[in-house]
Amino acid sequence: MHKVAVIGGDGIGPEIIESGKTVLEAAGEKFGFDIEWTEFDIGAERYLATGELLTEEDLKELEKYKAIYFGAIGDDRVKPGILEKGILLNLRFYFDQYINLRPIRMLAGVETPLAHKRPEDINFVVVRENTEDFYVGIGSRLKGREKKTLEVKRDIYSVKFGLDVETDADELAYQIGVITREGASRVIFYAFDMAQGRKKKVTSVDKANVLSDVYGLWRDVFLETAEKYPGTAHEFTFVDAITMWFVKNPEWFDVVVTPNMFGDIITDLGAMIQGGLGLAPGGNINPDGTSMFEPIHGSAPKYKGQNVANPLATIWAGSMLLEHLGEKEAADKVLQGIEASIREKMVTKDMGGSASTSGVGDWIASWIQTS
Amino acid sequence: MHKVAVIGGDGIGPEIIESGKTVLEAAGEKFGFDIEWTEFDIGAERYLATGELLTEEDLKELEKYKAIYFGAIGDDRVKPGILEKGILLNLRFYFDQYINLRPIRMLAGVETPLAHKRPEDINFVVVRENTEDFYVGIGSRLKGREKKTLEVKRDIYSVKFGLDVETDADELAYQIGVITREGASRVIFYAFDMAQGRKKKVTSVDKANVLSDVYGLWRDVFLETAEKYPGTAHEFTFVDAITMWFVKNPEWFDVVVTPNMFGDIITDLGAMIQGGLGLAPGGNINPDGTSMFEPIHGSAPKYKGQNVANPLATIWAGSMLLEHLGEKEAADKVLQGIEASIREKMVTKDMGGSASTSGVGDWIASWIQTS
Ligand SMILES: CC(C)[C@H](C(=O)O)[C@@H](O)C(=O)O
Ligand SMILES: CC(C)[C@H](C(=O)O)[C@@H](O)C(=O)O
Repeated sequence: MHKVAVIGGDGIGPEIIESGKTVLEAAGEKFGFDIEWTEFDIGAERYLATGELLTEEDLKELEKYKAIYFGAIGDDRVKPGILEKGILLNLRFYFDQYINLRPIRMLAGVETPLAHKRPEDINFVVVRENTEDFYVGIGSRLKGREKKTLEVKRDIYSVKFGLDVETDADELAYQIGVITREGASRVIFYAFDMAQGRKKKVTSVDKANVLSDVYGLWRDVFLETAEKYPGTAHEFTFVDAITMWFVKNPEWFDVVVTPNMFGDIITDLGAMIQGGLGLAPGGNINPDGTSMFEPIHGSAPKYKGQNVANPLATIWAGSMLLEHLGEKEAADKVLQGIEASIREKMVTKDMGGSASTSGVGDWIASWIQTS
Repeated sequence: MHKVAVIGGDGIGPEIIESGKTVLEAAGEKFGFDIEWTEFDIGAERYLATGELLTEEDLKELEKYKAIYFGAIGDDRVKPGILEKGILLNLRFYFDQYINLRPIRMLAGVETPLAHKRPEDINFVVVRENTEDFYVGIGSRLKGREKKTLEVKRDIYSVKFGLDVETDADELAYQIGVITREGASRVIFYAFDMAQGRKKKVTSVDKANVLSDVYGLWRDVFLETAEKYPGTAHEFTFVDAITMWFVKNPEWFDVVVTPNMFGDIITDLGAMIQGGLGLAPGGNINPDGTSMFEPIHGSAPKYKGQNVANPLATIWAGSMLLEHLGEKEAADKVLQGIEASIREKMVTKDMGGSASTSGVGDWIASWIQTS
């Protein structure tokens, strides 16, 4: 029996999660485990009604779970940033989910916008650092002079900036990014460990030639870690260059490890080359705590309630969730179910089919039961 | 008569610049102007011999020119960052070249890695801010506690950060990015002005939902500027999303305006979709001062002196240089010459031909003279 927390969220979130739950339950039946879902009412509706994003109580409750199944957040009535920071990033940081794992894999039968690339050419993993970098969210906007204290608190460290900033610009904004040795080290180790079960190649992303302080430290830690894995190939790329190679030579990559912000950018590009956001899952992982699995796309408010959204990224995220809970066989089966639905064209409109959100989930669930 | 400063730089830099000069001289002959070139010995060789990157004297001399024709810098014997910051970025900042103009245009006959995209689908311009953002290069690495003053000085403003930073991390690095109202405003105005001669659509790039301070200001300035151009369409994209659309729907874009760092990333991606770095030029522009035109690729040290490097990006940058100097007809002719060389397969090996670096330049020069 697995207990899983569920945050459907906004827009299409609840629908795609329902579809995912149907599939995961079918996998449970097949492989002999139960899943108990506990729904959390978190998202724009509640925020608009009560002003609450994530309460202490929410967090204390969620803390009891090893896994959260997360739909999507975002609503046109709320200013950009509020829900993203107050819910999604807050969860990632509070639970210290320092690994954001994003497989970039083109499944058979899927169309990529790239010419001449086949499924076997696009199959790598991006390990994105998920708690530091420019995502720490500290900065300010000022005129003239401003004194300020800004703090970042994480499970593994804290830092306090005392700032006295003076400018003659009409208005100035600044933003501070932070990388620590501990923070870089744990995610880079994770990437090298992961490469052991794959092709034993790790590519690091940075821009150490310009942002030399943060990414200089990142690069040093990467090099030191690489020394501990003498049988594993390692290389650097600059973030600008890697966007080119994703498009030109995706077959080059095995495990890509990246600071947070660059990871955000290159995994969207990765999602597109693997066939689009409708197919891209992500896991926010704390190996010793509460992890969270989500499609990497947004809440697409205009499709809400229409039963037309593509649930495959969410179902795939569900497969990652099962694997995380130790149900490897069931996880593999779910992924095979996704492949079967693509093969049989039981897919939503965005992928050229005519199935509904729930229809895709039901089809994969029964495929799992009968195969 | 135009006086142009020349910095060949490192690796293949001097060769591609020679090829470019040949073409620009031919265009001058055809359209009745002379170009006087003045070579500057700047780059890795000099740095390794004398420790000098850019001297006050270099800068005072270069200041006399409206245009610099720049090859490439970078050498394996020098640590990453030294030449980039000490020469390339230093020139951009010293001459306040606040516009980095990068056409993303697929010429006829060129291969793109994208399926189903034709030259008419890939034809837009990226206007990259070129003096601010995380490129200001301020930050530090520390253990325990550190007090520090960091300053940024630009022609239009300066800012001083007094910092007192304390952490319990084993080692921590921070990096500060800066955006000002003035800095954002001038480049966004430039983009809107440019859109008037095009399809009247401007797309802004940011990540205001996470890096809310710097990109919140950027977004506000973008919106305020858009109001002054009521006949011009405007929209925002998040940087992660735009990498997807470059690959999926490049035909969507007309003028894209972006903060510095995101501009670095998306223009490399842009270069790849238009056919590769061998074909991507850039202009670093100060409308009232000294501007600089360069291929956006690097110095490719291993091909140095072999006369095999593709000079087309440099020749295209030369076309931009001529346009900047008011020689619009000659500039157009140079671009037509590039297209002719592609049509006639007078191209280097990377583009499937067998011509040499100088061979391509000579061929385009004589095409200009005889057509
Ligand atoms: C919604 C946003 C805050 C988030 C991020 O930037 O990490 C998203 O783009 C992602 O990649 O999960
Ligand atoms: C060489 C490097 C400093 C430079 C940049 O980051 O701007 C380059 O990538 C570019 O795009 O011109």
